[in-house]
Amino acid sequence: LQSKLPKVGTTIFTVMSQLAQEHGAVNLGQGFPDFEAPARLVEELDRAMRAGHNQYAPMTGVPALRQAIAAKTVRVYGHQPDADGEVTVTSGATEAIFNAIHAVVRAGDEVVVLDPCYDCYEPAIDLAGARAVHVPLDPATFAPDWQRVREAIGPRTRMLMINSPHNPSGAMLSAQDMVELAAILEGTGIFLLSDEVYEHIVFDGARHESVLRWPALRDRAFVVSSFGKTYHCTGWKVGYCIAPPALTAEFRKVHQYNVFCTFAPAQHAFAAMLEAEPEHYEQLGAFYQAKRDRFREQLASTRLRPLPVPGGYFQLVDYSAVSDLDDAAFCRWLTVEHGVAAIPLSPFYEAPPPGQRLARLCFAKNPATLDAAIGRLQRL
Amino acid sequence: LQSKLPKVGTTIFTVMSQLAQEHGAVNLGQGFPDFEAPARLVEELDRAMRAGHNQYAPMTGVPALRQAIAAKTVRVYGHQPDADGEVTVTSGATEAIFNAIHAVVRAGDEVVVLDPCYDCYEPAIDLAGARAVHVPLDPATFAPDWQRVREAIGPRTRMLMINSPHNPSGAMLSAQDMVELAAILEGTGIFLLSDEVYEHIVFDGARHESVLRWPALRDRAFVVSSFGKTYHCTGWKVGYCIAPPALTAEFRKVHQYNVFCTFAPAQHAFAAMLEAEPEHYEQLGAFYQAKRDRFREQLASTRLRPLPVPGGYFQLVDYSAVSDLDDAAFCRWLTVEHGVAAIPLSPFYEAPPPGQRLARLCFAKNPATLDAAIGRLQRL
Ligand SMILES: CSCCC(=O)C(=O)O
Ligand SMILES: CSCCC(=O)C(=O)O
Repeated sequence: LQSKLPKVGTTIFTVMSQLAQEHGAVNLGQGFPDFEAPARLVEELDRAMRAGHNQYAPMTGVPALRQAIAAKTVRVYGHQPDADGEVTVTSGATEAIFNAIHAVVRAGDEVVVLDPCYDCYEPAIDLAGARAVHVPLDPATFAPDWQRVREAIGPRTRMLMINSPHNPSGAMLSAQDMVELAAILEGTGIFLLSDEVYEHIVFDGARHESVLRWPALRDRAFVVSSFGKTYHCTGWKVGYCIAPPALTAEFRKVHQYNVFCTFAPAQHAFAAMLEAEPEHYEQLGAFYQAKRDRFREQLASTRLRPLPVPGGYFQLVDYSAVSDLDDAAFCRWLTVEHGVAAIPLSPFYEAPPPGQRLARLCFAKNPATLDAAIGRLQRL
Repeated sequence: LQSKLPKVGTTIFTVMSQLAQEHGAVNLGQGFPDFEAPARLVEELDRAMRAGHNQYAPMTGVPALRQAIAAKTVRVYGHQPDADGEVTVTSGATEAIFNAIHAVVRAGDEVVVLDPCYDCYEPAIDLAGARAVHVPLDPATFAPDWQRVREAIGPRTRMLMINSPHNPSGAMLSAQDMVELAAILEGTGIFLLSDEVYEHIVFDGARHESVLRWPALRDRAFVVSSFGKTYHCTGWKVGYCIAPPALTAEFRKVHQYNVFCTFAPAQHAFAAMLEAEPEHYEQLGAFYQAKRDRFREQLASTRLRPLPVPGGYFQLVDYSAVSDLDDAAFCRWLTVEHGVAAIPLSPFYEAPPPGQRLARLCFAKNPATLDAAIGRLQRL
């Protein structure tokens, strides 16, 4: 049996979580909170089950949830998508990304991705019979070099993927970036896939430049987000995709025959939450900023050098004062010998920058967890 | 935008459910129970959420659930799959079918399907860049003609799909069928995809010939099932795939980057249910047989002629004594004018048998629902 995805192994997140467990390490690797989802959310799901919402949801998503997403979108980004024709609920952002790619990318096409990028992008592109074209972000700031993006675009380019706030770096695209991106795409038939799952985790008063704010971009874009990050329940796997009607129609054809619909009671629960507590996601930045600031302060007592974190819940650290190991070896060593699991950056690249000594730590954790990790990191 | 799936429209199940709602029809179309999931299952999900199982489940599925599936499989079919290397939990059987196809079917391949077949098969094959080769089942008995299957197989055949108990007909494959199928596949590299979601809904003491009982078949097979049918919760979207290690490895590569993992609390709930109440699925046949028998008896008072139902929860009826309309028109008419929604069979075919006058009615309903439907059907 010759593999269709010969390059794919077990994702680095699973590998490091398993290693963390085997060695009793504090797990700052895989990105998930170790605190609880809001009690009200659990109550709402409970209520939905007991109200009998246990059969197939509509393929496109529960109407109340699609409407709540549309209402949230206009409140936050000033653009109201049509709940019926432009919003689709999915089984997590990963499914949404997979569907968007399979909806429009054809065999022989090229998809431009910016490295480092989340590891589900390329396998989905490969499965569609297309080829990922990797353009590196700036190795220091993780900003795109739009000139290089322009050069990577050719007659076969079908889609371009962006991600802001960015995993793994936390970097955010600026308004100027959006203007430059719009200029690049203008007059082309290239689609945009914007992964915005950390949209509400932004710091220091920065504004998240959702593609939904930019008419020239959103008219050709699939914008993907997820409730897992916003509501501290990564295991609930409810995400969504907002796209213009013609793109949504193709997206839904894939969704319909991929998973058909998403766990129904959770859809009702999120609809209720979005309506009842809009302040939840408004406060999310401050909630995580406090964690970020405390963690960075503590990191100052270690020999790891923290990079800036404009958004998201990951802290990149430069470990070159500690070790000469490459990042994969360093993260294994840190997990096994020092009891702190981290994620290396190299799996996010086609070609990691030579000599890069960066590891990713997740700070979506209780203070006690971060304290325990810091205690161990201080011994480095 | 040229569609990658130009033939795909809204699935017939959604179309008819919407029509049923618009016209206040009793909905015997889309297959889902109108009674509640077991109270204990709801309690178990609740418990799982409150126990904090709200973050990512392992990509392959919660270990306790995979073990419970393996234990159930050996109990029912006498074959114990390896919970670690051969069982993968998915977001419903639809995702499992999609993954299995994408795991091994390549551009230019052919996949043999037996018509009528469930409508998610062909779009998934198309998206993989392959071609569905349709072999009709016997129009009266819905039994496969293995000689025709043999003739449909060629050098490009990569996979063969079967479904027993069969949707829409309820027909079941016999032990003799399995022997003939094994003979056809012997010495070929053709994979088998066996959709067994109605495995526990079988009647009259019949034995479900799971592919898992047959070593010559299971060694090349993806066997797909679902908890939605077994536990009356089609909206929970938890299914699974059992396949030999080499196939499971490829299956998981797709699953990992398609949805990554499935709603975690439900996995814990099903694990608990499988362990606590093995008698649930043992009693499922009797539970539905009572519904079937009562419904068929009632149908005798109408001008619809019921076909035999060996398994599943659908009743096919021949309406030729009532109407000359084709099945799509008949089902619309029945819904709009007589207030009972049914599913036409033609969408399950590449080429529906000319003059076939069959409609599908779902009897996974409360007695009151079926009584209401019968009252209306008597007026035909
Ligand atoms: C799907 S497991 C990975 C979770 C995540 O988003 C990350 O750690 O980057
Ligand atoms: C996914 S909606 C269709 C449900 C079903 O299995 C059927 O009605 O055949």
